[in-house]
Amino acid sequence: MKAPHTCSSEKMNPQTLLLILLLLPAARAFQFTRMAQYVDSHQEEYVEALRDWVAIESDSSNVLKRPDLHHMMEVVAQKLRLMGGTVELVDIGEQELPNGQILALPKVVTAQFGNDTSKHTVCVYGHVDVQPAKLEDGWNTDPYNLTEINGHLYGRGASDNKAPVLAWIHAVGAYQALHMDLPVNVKFVIEGMEETGSNGLDAMILAQRNTFFSDVDYIIISDCGWLSRRPALTYGTRGNCYFFAEVEGPKQDLHSGVYGGSVIEPMTDLIGILDSLISPSGKIQIPGIREAVAPLTDEEWKMYQDIEFDLENYKNKTGVSQLMYDNKVDLLAHMWRYPTVSIHGIEGAFSDPGTKTVIPAKVTGKFSIRQVPNMDPAVVKTQVTDYLHSVFGKRKSPNKLKVSMVIGAKPWLANTQHPLYEAGKAAVNKVFNVDPDLIREGGTIPIARTFQDVTGKSIIMIPIGGFDDGLHSQNEKMSRYNYIEGTKLFIAYLNEVSQIKKTSV
Amino acid sequence: MKAPHTCSSEKMNPQTLLLILLLLPAARAFQFTRMAQYVDSHQEEYVEALRDWVAIESDSSNVLKRPDLHHMMEVVAQKLRLMGGTVELVDIGEQELPNGQILALPKVVTAQFGNDTSKHTVCVYGHVDVQPAKLEDGWNTDPYNLTEINGHLYGRGASDNKAPVLAWIHAVGAYQALHMDLPVNVKFVIEGMEETGSNGLDAMILAQRNTFFSDVDYIIISDCGWLSRRPALTYGTRGNCYFFAEVEGPKQDLHSGVYGGSVIEPMTDLIGILDSLISPSGKIQIPGIREAVAPLTDEEWKMYQDIEFDLENYKNKTGVSQLMYDNKVDLLAHMWRYPTVSIHGIEGAFSDPGTKTVIPAKVTGKFSIRQVPNMDPAVVKTQVTDYLHSVFGKRKSPNKLKVSMVIGAKPWLANTQHPLYEAGKAAVNKVFNVDPDLIREGGTIPIARTFQDVTGKSIIMIPIGGFDDGLHSQNEKMSRYNYIEGTKLFIAYLNEVSQIKKTSV
Repeated sequence: MKAPHTCSSEKMNPQTLLLILLLLPAARAFQFTRMAQYVDSHQEEYVEALRDWVAIESDSSNVLKRPDLHHMMEVVAQKLRLMGGTVELVDIGEQELPNGQILALPKVVTAQFGNDTSKHTVCVYGHVDVQPAKLEDGWNTDPYNLTEINGHLYGRGASDNKAPVLAWIHAVGAYQALHMDLPVNVKFVIEGMEETGSNGLDAMILAQRNTFFSDVDYIIISDCGWLSRRPALTYGTRGNCYFFAEVEGPKQDLHSGVYGGSVIEPMTDLIGILDSLISPSGKIQIPGIREAVAPLTDEEWKMYQDIEFDLENYKNKTGVSQLMYDNKVDLLAHMWRYPTVSIHGIEGAFSDPGTKTVIPAKVTGKFSIRQVPNMDPAVVKTQVTDYLHSVFGKRKSPNKLKVSMVIGAKPWLANTQHPLYEAGKAAVNKVFNVDPDLIREGGTIPIARTFQDVTGKSIIMIPIGGFDDGLHSQNEKMSRYNYIEGTKLFIAYLNEVSQIKKTSV
Repeated sequence: MKAPHTCSSEKMNPQTLLLILLLLPAARAFQFTRMAQYVDSHQEEYVEALRDWVAIESDSSNVLKRPDLHHMMEVVAQKLRLMGGTVELVDIGEQELPNGQILALPKVVTAQFGNDTSKHTVCVYGHVDVQPAKLEDGWNTDPYNLTEINGHLYGRGASDNKAPVLAWIHAVGAYQALHMDLPVNVKFVIEGMEETGSNGLDAMILAQRNTFFSDVDYIIISDCGWLSRRPALTYGTRGNCYFFAEVEGPKQDLHSGVYGGSVIEPMTDLIGILDSLISPSGKIQIPGIREAVAPLTDEEWKMYQDIEFDLENYKNKTGVSQLMYDNKVDLLAHMWRYPTVSIHGIEGAFSDPGTKTVIPAKVTGKFSIRQVPNMDPAVVKTQVTDYLHSVFGKRKSPNKLKVSMVIGAKPWLANTQHPLYEAGKAAVNKVFNVDPDLIREGGTIPIARTFQDVTGKSIIMIPIGGFDDGLHSQNEKMSRYNYIEGTKLFIAYLNEVSQIKKTSV
């Protein structure tokens, strides 16, 4: 029996079809509005979810917190399972610490929502490990107890990267809750070692290149932040080579009164070689490093010139009386596309309050060099190691120097003309009603480069973190506004990506 | 009614008196043997007393441990009270920390045993505060749980200075237990701030110069150690000027990826100025410091030449492959009578295990310069502050440098010809059957110089700590042998001091 009225387009008269086509954008807008309203009305639930995640001290750099990190990965997997995703906890093996200790790496969570081959498949990457944080470092609130003050949600990992990961999960959840078909298939890769260089992830991506990643069209990463109050899309990141320089002398710490004058102190040697890395004005002194850097093009210079960036505001935000460069282009270039050396600290020396009169026996200087095109971490490792041994050799010290590179992450650069970026601009326009800035990121998202090299897929970075979120520092926060509007942005973006022609991969 | 036999010497016949006088030395020897036996048979009790004291974390450099330190002083006072001493807990005021915080200083314990004006009065100085210690620093045992291994009593403060203080108390206790008259009046001054420069003690000594200290003839200090397995008497110590160099830049820690290249990092500045303090070979580069040092005399050179000191053994003990000097005289001279700079560590930078990618906002370098005659801490303060500001100024950094001297302790030097030292040699011979080495101490005992300057009394240092006790470092220990024989040495020394002619002050 045939229905009296059919809606099949084959049988529809041209007028009706035209009417429907004309109404379609309105219908889509309506859908987005409905989803946005859903997000607004569920924001307390989203904040609570973030509170639960921040409470887990998933510090990947502290081996004592490894059980918390394993727990964190289980929590992520369970959340995705409860939403009906096809979830796996992928064993990525073990790591060897500099002291020889072997430690299990946190498993990587993979998940899949939707399996429709007529749709694009996006893969959202995120991480749920965090940087170290202690109240004594100068936090105003307990770093692991999410605390809202004036619309800001303070907590370690709130912005980097727990809220963005949750926003993606909530975006998928909103489609589900409103019984709307996901416009694209969505996969997740959530790791727990990002803050220490994504140990084990490269091999896992390589291993699953022809399985989990085979049908992935695009990779989406939201592990970064805006440059100003204007939303942004990110098209490049710096890499990072992190070094330990260990100087060992006496067999144990010595009293500086009793022994001072009888031994060459490891701290004196370490301070000496660390001081040789960089000039007072910030110039890297390791031969070969600066020579490898791709020259700044006129086009790049022009692009930087056009970006919304307030030097005075940036200065106030950092709280320094003077920036390293006093013009926008030089400053952006040195944050994004030139290498820098930062000395982070010394392990093994006296670092507590007070006045210990000790000659530390073994001290490890920690510093890192941000990588940019066309640097190669393997070459940098050799350059740094050779240079430090040469500087140390001239000191004629009886102490022993050991240089090791514990992180070696490459930089990444995308083509901003790709339809992925066009879709990004459209989604930003829908939610925020402005064009995004096209920016780069001084920090490192190691997986970006790996995805590019191993899978050959295109990548976009869509940040939702604020420019003043204080990543890696005291009082890290995610503003409620960015978290909630960011969830809407992800909802809109999934829809925009579905409009990309199937050929544009 | 008159007793049938009287023992009054007035009525004794000359032969009997002669007999008694002839027998007197034998009686004394017998007394010492009896006391030594008493000490041997009470050694477990002495070890338990040390265990109780070590269990109190009286770390004077850690403000969080201040309550433990206050408790420690109470425990000392109570022990002396129970022995019948006249005990006072002297309020010495407050200290201001570099951050402006005000903290009560631990009270100083004074005590008095005996009040016989016909006898000499000695004042034993000691301290019961300790250096910081954590199991994670590399201790084999809990530093606050005294643990005996192969006759060594391991624990923070065991040798520096809790066991020596207890040995003096037990020496007085042994006279009491055996109902023997103390041969001299014994006073105690026990403080709790020695490890951070004896804050407040100078003023207290000055204030009690004409009261508590007015009848003191000699000061005895046992806050040092032997140089070899041969017992020693110490006649000099170095002083100590401890500096904080704080470099402050951004208003909070920054992510080194995001901000690296945009700010001049405080760590780079701090490393630069610390590196300017000392040459690779250990030469102090602060103008004026080396010029102030008293020249080495031929007599000194000869003295050092005669001291029992095994360079190879010392090298093995410290575990370095090469000492700063390869001959005995140069090495001893640089440990005892030349200034040295030690860089202890940096507060505010990343010092934990792992790989934090942080630009620390405010870092404080900590270093100290050992003081020798004829250096003056007030002058050194100016020399160091001016020099660091000059080096820092050349860097043209926008960061702020603040240099403060938080400890300024003078060196001390005694006359080894004084009867106090003759008495020391006799006591060492009685207990150990050898002559002591006459040595100096590279470390600082601030009160020595203060006593000399303020009271004008003569001072002797009688160490009982072993040459390998690991003061200020991991696995500090006091050997049971030194602790117990040291107690006997103090018993013998009190008797020897009583023989000094009243004129020899």
